[in-house]
Amino acid sequence: MDPSQEQPTGRRSVAHVRDAWYVLAQSPELTDKPLARKLFGVPLVLFRDPSGAAGCVLDRCPHRMVPLSLGRVVQGQLECGYHGWQFDTAGTCRTVPGLCSGEEAKSRNVASYATREQDGFVWVWGTADQEPTDEPYRLPATDRPGYAVVRRVVDFPGSLVMTLENALDVPHTAFLHRGLFRGGREPVEIKAILTRTRHMVQAEFVGEPRPEGIAAKILSPSGGVLTHFDRFKLPSVAEVEYKLGEDSHIVTTSLCTPVEDFLTRVYAVISLKSPVPSWLVAPFIEPFAFKIFDQDAWILREQSEAIEHWGGERYQNTEIDLMGAQIWRMLRRAEGGKLDEDDEDWSREIRLRV
Amino acid sequence: MDPSQEQPTGRRSVAHVRDAWYVLAQSPELTDKPLARKLFGVPLVLFRDPSGAAGCVLDRCPHRMVPLSLGRVVQGQLECGYHGWQFDTAGTCRTVPGLCSGEEAKSRNVASYATREQDGFVWVWGTADQEPTDEPYRLPATDRPGYAVVRRVVDFPGSLVMTLENALDVPHTAFLHRGLFRGGREPVEIKAILTRTRHMVQAEFVGEPRPEGIAAKILSPSGGVLTHFDRFKLPSVAEVEYKLGEDSHIVTTSLCTPVEDFLTRVYAVISLKSPVPSWLVAPFIEPFAFKIFDQDAWILREQSEAIEHWGGERYQNTEIDLMGAQIWRMLRRAEGGKLDEDDEDWSREIRLRV
Amino acid sequence: MDPSQEQPTGRRSVAHVRDAWYVLAQSPELTDKPLARKLFGVPLVLFRDPSGAAGCVLDRCPHRMVPLSLGRVVQGQLECGYHGWQFDTAGTCRTVPGLCSGEEAKSRNVASYATREQDGFVWVWGTADQEPTDEPYRLPATDRPGYAVVRRVVDFPGSLVMTLENALDVPHTAFLHRGLFRGGREPVEIKAILTRTRHMVQAEFVGEPRPEGIAAKILSPSGGVLTHFDRFKLPSVAEVEYKLGEDSHIVTTSLCTPVEDFLTRVYAVISLKSPVPSWLVAPFIEPFAFKIFDQDAWILREQSEAIEHWGGERYQNTEIDLMGAQIWRMLRRAEGGKLDEDDEDWSREIRLRV
Repeated sequence: MDPSQEQPTGRRSVAHVRDAWYVLAQSPELTDKPLARKLFGVPLVLFRDPSGAAGCVLDRCPHRMVPLSLGRVVQGQLECGYHGWQFDTAGTCRTVPGLCSGEEAKSRNVASYATREQDGFVWVWGTADQEPTDEPYRLPATDRPGYAVVRRVVDFPGSLVMTLENALDVPHTAFLHRGLFRGGREPVEIKAILTRTRHMVQAEFVGEPRPEGIAAKILSPSGGVLTHFDRFKLPSVAEVEYKLGEDSHIVTTSLCTPVEDFLTRVYAVISLKSPVPSWLVAPFIEPFAFKIFDQDAWILREQSEAIEHWGGERYQNTEIDLMGAQIWRMLRRAEGGKLDEDDEDWSREIRLRV
Repeated sequence: MDPSQEQPTGRRSVAHVRDAWYVLAQSPELTDKPLARKLFGVPLVLFRDPSGAAGCVLDRCPHRMVPLSLGRVVQGQLECGYHGWQFDTAGTCRTVPGLCSGEEAKSRNVASYATREQDGFVWVWGTADQEPTDEPYRLPATDRPGYAVVRRVVDFPGSLVMTLENALDVPHTAFLHRGLFRGGREPVEIKAILTRTRHMVQAEFVGEPRPEGIAAKILSPSGGVLTHFDRFKLPSVAEVEYKLGEDSHIVTTSLCTPVEDFLTRVYAVISLKSPVPSWLVAPFIEPFAFKIFDQDAWILREQSEAIEHWGGERYQNTEIDLMGAQIWRMLRRAEGGKLDEDDEDWSREIRLRV
Repeated sequence: MDPSQEQPTGRRSVAHVRDAWYVLAQSPELTDKPLARKLFGVPLVLFRDPSGAAGCVLDRCPHRMVPLSLGRVVQGQLECGYHGWQFDTAGTCRTVPGLCSGEEAKSRNVASYATREQDGFVWVWGTADQEPTDEPYRLPATDRPGYAVVRRVVDFPGSLVMTLENALDVPHTAFLHRGLFRGGREPVEIKAILTRTRHMVQAEFVGEPRPEGIAAKILSPSGGVLTHFDRFKLPSVAEVEYKLGEDSHIVTTSLCTPVEDFLTRVYAVISLKSPVPSWLVAPFIEPFAFKIFDQDAWILREQSEAIEHWGGERYQNTEIDLMGAQIWRMLRRAEGGKLDEDDEDWSREIRLRV
């Protein structure tokens, strides 16, 4: 059969892990107005109650279905813009203007979502009307002395799996980011140690050459070994950590929110320590990081469009696709509620050229 | 189950009452050119026959399916722009250019629709090749002395039911139209008398406070009681009637045409009598009415998008949703041809705050 | 039943004849970069191997599905822009950067398509990984002395069948192209001889009046008879040939490529001999031809939109629709592999007015 006519038989990289926390906003974005957001394609609306605490309800008035985010916040109640029905952060309908009979009715309530505000982010629990079973992920190194912190929000037109894989994949950097990131010298063979626990997979790269040139000398004048870890933490966190000698340390944490099946919003936090004053380094990191984000967003869009065109995914993995397969498997298990049945923790070594 | 994952179990506010008249154009719009229109999503084309009478046929040439509205009108015949086939207002194919064998063929005819021109509108019967069973609705007060008449055409991105409900709903005015219409004072409790016959439902509002301020004094210097009726007449007419004392009288008639399932074109006619000369009042009504139309169109678009997003409708009515439920039920019965089986006429009272 | 509610019961003018050659590019378009194309909606990518020969593979990297056309050509190998996998024109994956284990794997290869470069066009066989059973169509009269040749590429928003029929249909010219082409005088009755062989259908028009006015005198000062042939050659070639006396000869060949089901790219070649020097005539042909192409593209777009709206096709043919029915039948038989079971060659006469 003509291969172009085959149906994809592979996976579809969309996983909905709903009993988990996701970042829906940065704290300063949530003011005295309703803030419309989406999670797994479901429209939600954030607002602050009379005490200033963040709340989140389904963005759909039970009366005529219009988005509640089109209305306003009146004394900590969310008011629909069409007929003025009012709701509190628990989703209870408190007022139906014009109605004389006073009793409340459960059918007029709207679904609500548990909410936490932490590390400058508003986190929302992915299942409505449910008590969270844990607490949100804590950012590393956001307030350690000597560290500069840069935050950015970037939308990637790919599924959560695709975006996490892209954030943690080493081999693409020499090609997609040619000239910016790796690719400037002959590849050398190194070792990667892949470690898998129930909620995390980590790749440690041993023997990776330290960057050449002036940049490296500035960042680590005393020389020293390059240490590099990539980590995925269920269901939405990607960490990339570099150490160069004792002087330089950089952790990029990507908090990934599945806005739609093929749209992932990444709240990126870059924590940086270097012998050069961080206020001096930070301005140079940003344009570099943005260029890389742009290239990643571009290829993810192309990949998503191809998946839509072909009606599904059909991938050929090799052994150097270290993280992607693990990310997909862990998310699938988490989605199916099968994390407890998972195998023992394990670790293995792979050789690759970088 | 997470409410955001539930499927809508409610109705879908789309009703196709086809054995009825609908306005498809204002008379002056139909000149010596074909005029493309849609009804229930079906493309139709209007044109005038040699005597100037309006005709309407399906906008699809039987030959190669191209819209006949792309062609021209030649001596009262509608000519296709692709191969020149010609049709009369009865839909009969009169000419196939190039063809030597002269006989006509029924398969070359196009469906035609009964047409009436009345009150400055071109009305079309909603079923092709069918004799109408009644005559179009007659506009009230279009030529009574002392009345000013303003006409406007507005497209609302909502279903026929949604648009009619919006036109006849009182409670939304204080919120969607805050500052323009109601909402400026403390609500008072009043009585509404809802009367239902086979083809009409009417709400009469008793005890509604008269508007305050200078406007009211100008409109009714002698004071007097405010009378307010809202009426729906099957399948497409909404009337809102206000009287203020003996001096002022305003009737807004909305002739609603279901262009597509979620696009309704409203031919609005405002008839106004007031102690102030009507030529003086009319210019002030228009910007006010347009602002209200804009706000209604905006919320209907949001409601339609929500319905599309959620795949259907899921409404929570309260007893002050006087008209919407009746409009939907009457249209559903009319669509199913079950009007004759309808119950007795009835009337009931509801209390609400306005 | 209301005719506007009927479902189309007719054919759908989409035929996929895959074991055939199609033009995918003009030779000069294919340089040292990958060139993205589509055939039957399937994304393909053309590139040149180290010897400069044209190759064509499926435009989908087996690794992560991104289009290979986003990458680059490195020493005659096509390199993916995401992870740098490299492929030759046979579709074999030659390199996976970063991978230490050296063996190749068939699953990493990409489907490839036979390719020919001829008459200034790159032809591609419509089925992947298949040996062609014949050679591409040869253009007539591209290099005969005294002939001017004009080439143009035009996209028509119609199916292959619709576009071929339009190119070879006589009756529409007096209406769609009114004022440009026919239609300026009273129609006369002439004879058409329709001849059908297995791979071709030809209409010869006998008695067609020669054009009037100065144009005709310039083109054929010696007078003489007008000869006119229209030909369809399976699966994608339309030829229109005119001779006026001994002096003037014009052949318009349309090589039609089904890019998508309702998008056909036409590589048009006009070969012209006339008593007026061809360098003088050619500049006058172009704007005239382009205007005609524009009108044809416009009506095909309208026809395609109608087909989409109605969900299929519903045509009424008359006996003067000489070519369309034959084109459709031949393509359907070719698509079904039933050409060999076809009837005897035949010929018949039809009378029509032009």
